[in-house]
Amino acid sequence: MRNVKCARCVKCGKEYEAVPNLTNCACGGILDIIYDYDYIKTVLTKEKMAARKNNTMWRYRELLPIEETTPDTPLRVGWSPLYEADRLAKILGIKKLWIKDDGQNPTASLKDRASAMAVAKAQEAGAKVIACSSTGNAASSLAGNAAAAGLKTYIFVPARAPKGKVAQLMTFGANVVSVQGNYEETFELSKAAIDKWGWYNRNAAINPYLSEGKKTVSLEIAEQLDWKMPDYLAISVGDGCTIAGVWKGLKDLYAIGFIDKLPRLISAQAEGCHPINRAIANNEPWYPMEENTIADSIAVGVPRNADKALNAIRESNGIVVNVTDEEIMAAQKLVGTTCGVFGEPAGVTGAAGLKKLCEQGVIGENDTVVSVITGNGLKDVANAIKACGDPMSCPNDMEQLLKVFADNGIDPDKA
Amino acid sequence: MRNVKCARCVKCGKEYEAVPNLTNCACGGILDIIYDYDYIKTVLTKEKMAARKNNTMWRYRELLPIEETTPDTPLRVGWSPLYEADRLAKILGIKKLWIKDDGQNPTASLKDRASAMAVAKAQEAGAKVIACSSTGNAASSLAGNAAAAGLKTYIFVPARAPKGKVAQLMTFGANVVSVQGNYEETFELSKAAIDKWGWYNRNAAINPYLSEGKKTVSLEIAEQLDWKMPDYLAISVGDGCTIAGVWKGLKDLYAIGFIDKLPRLISAQAEGCHPINRAIANNEPWYPMEENTIADSIAVGVPRNADKALNAIRESNGIVVNVTDEEIMAAQKLVGTTCGVFGEPAGVTGAAGLKKLCEQGVIGENDTVVSVITGNGLKDVANAIKACGDPMSCPNDMEQLLKVFADNGIDPDKA
Repeated sequence: MRNVKCARCVKCGKEYEAVPNLTNCACGGILDIIYDYDYIKTVLTKEKMAARKNNTMWRYRELLPIEETTPDTPLRVGWSPLYEADRLAKILGIKKLWIKDDGQNPTASLKDRASAMAVAKAQEAGAKVIACSSTGNAASSLAGNAAAAGLKTYIFVPARAPKGKVAQLMTFGANVVSVQGNYEETFELSKAAIDKWGWYNRNAAINPYLSEGKKTVSLEIAEQLDWKMPDYLAISVGDGCTIAGVWKGLKDLYAIGFIDKLPRLISAQAEGCHPINRAIANNEPWYPMEENTIADSIAVGVPRNADKALNAIRESNGIVVNVTDEEIMAAQKLVGTTCGVFGEPAGVTGAAGLKKLCEQGVIGENDTVVSVITGNGLKDVANAIKACGDPMSCPNDMEQLLKVFADNGIDPDKA
Repeated sequence: MRNVKCARCVKCGKEYEAVPNLTNCACGGILDIIYDYDYIKTVLTKEKMAARKNNTMWRYRELLPIEETTPDTPLRVGWSPLYEADRLAKILGIKKLWIKDDGQNPTASLKDRASAMAVAKAQEAGAKVIACSSTGNAASSLAGNAAAAGLKTYIFVPARAPKGKVAQLMTFGANVVSVQGNYEETFELSKAAIDKWGWYNRNAAINPYLSEGKKTVSLEIAEQLDWKMPDYLAISVGDGCTIAGVWKGLKDLYAIGFIDKLPRLISAQAEGCHPINRAIANNEPWYPMEENTIADSIAVGVPRNADKALNAIRESNGIVVNVTDEEIMAAQKLVGTTCGVFGEPAGVTGAAGLKKLCEQGVIGENDTVVSVITGNGLKDVANAIKACGDPMSCPNDMEQLLKVFADNGIDPDKA
């Protein structure tokens, strides 16, 4: 990989050769992939990007830690739509808002970006089996992307993972272990099994390549905005890998001169589980927290990538905001009604945080914001039903319909 | 619309001006949009298509019944991925197979193509409200596409519509009426309400523009295959609008000389509800049938667009095949495991039909096929769970894990 110099520990600074099956530093720290931006500048230009027809995350190969000979992974991951959300911007009282709908990935979440990277690196490593633990989305995305590439998977999910996500990965033919415990215990069992059998490791805070996959969401946002960056980028935070990836992508583009401004990150966590935001707010080290939220994908009491996430938020002069489950459900409905985008609870937590910051006057009429929806609402229908209530029920009878409308305060004549 | 000549009744041949709010012919027949192919040939070339950057269904404007001034609808509908499914082709024993994953549309089904068209035409008509009845996907796609465009919706669903679909359209802010009855009764009540309040009508077999939206799936398949057509195109059939649209798109391309071969259509219906296939098989008029299948999106006992569907199957020298619910569930797993694509039961019915035809030797080693997956499996998780069973359950304990693997016949050492 001519574009990659090495992998460097974010904790002790020790450097490693960027082999495909990298895990953590000997000191326990997480590794970061270090690029040769001078080289990249010689091979990548905006004009070259503009002419590119590959509408997947692999259009950014020069900025990805991948051998030139490694094939694109089979599923169409990335290049999700970025919608101008003028109606919602008006409601929030901000200058401009874009919604990046990453629920439009093949298995319906942003995690497809990391899983596609894992599949590519596993193939470089000559591995035939990939494994991970996950609250759900990493699992289903790994199962789908691996199935498409003909690789076998072992996947460990906590017992609380929503049924939709489990059904999805069972359909993809994964060997699924539902661990009777929380995410922490699930992670531990997966680690023990991976150590025992030598499977390729897709645990995001262990494998440093995965946030490099995730960063493509930022690369796309920047390109879709013609390299003119917003003031803020709002995203939900759980394990910490996604926000770290998002920041890495922005810094990459800044380093090669594609963008001349770095947005401030808005780190949105659930009120019931926000160890990373607490560490920022109190300017203290993070420590474990309970996992009490409907936003299962970000219910991570022991974030595995807190170091990179905290760095990202601090470097960007970021803002932290915690939202209740009620605020998350309200945001789900608000984004659905105004943008036609259906996000899962964790998926809309960034938007819920943005709404709260607008209400608090932290973000206002002169600000421009991108809000990333990280997963599709179809992944967790049970909570969507809770948020929406039941539809009106009526027999096939016009008189009854008039009565049902009246009972529900609906006047079709006023339409 | 310079590219459109008129709308013509498929039953009596009467012609109408192609105004935006067209419904059925006075005789009750369904209208078909008639194009001026000579004109289209002067404004559309393959080179022009190839240079186009618009990766939505609106890239085919010259072949769509839309005013030049009508804006693209907001959501990114269309240009879904077409995957080479070599592993599955080998299992089925055919030469070449492609999977068109139309579950990758904004609200996760092919119906987004029709709903985006409905939104565009409603805007041309100056309407502020759109309404429809639907088994689910048409509803959620209308709700999402209308919400994104700022239009109001009234949507009538049968009581059996899966909760995921209902939750989705409630999230999009639709006024939802769950009709205590089957699809037929749902359709009737929606018709009565539409007549009463003058809403824009998105019922697919009433509004002739909708199958013009659906036909974009064929236009894309052809372009994605570099205009080299397969021998067969397999698709699930319910109301009949989709297969009619698919055929229309193919004929359009043939008429303007973009393709020189028309694939034979494979019409797949559920064993428990196949009035259209029965009419073809027995060479008789269609008549109503019970609706007994898990594939809710194609459980249509009184198909509203049988005329166009029957024409399409006959004109293409098509093949009909009926599959049981068990065969549908098996296909769901097979497509998931080999392609990393998760389709809903109705979504994989075309693939199930293809599999059956391969087993029967009707389709074989020299044949090339495109199979369209019409909707995402996340739409109907309950049935996916039925198809897949439960995951292995295990505490965070390596000894227990070994036992669980052994109990389930899994040997990780053999990976």
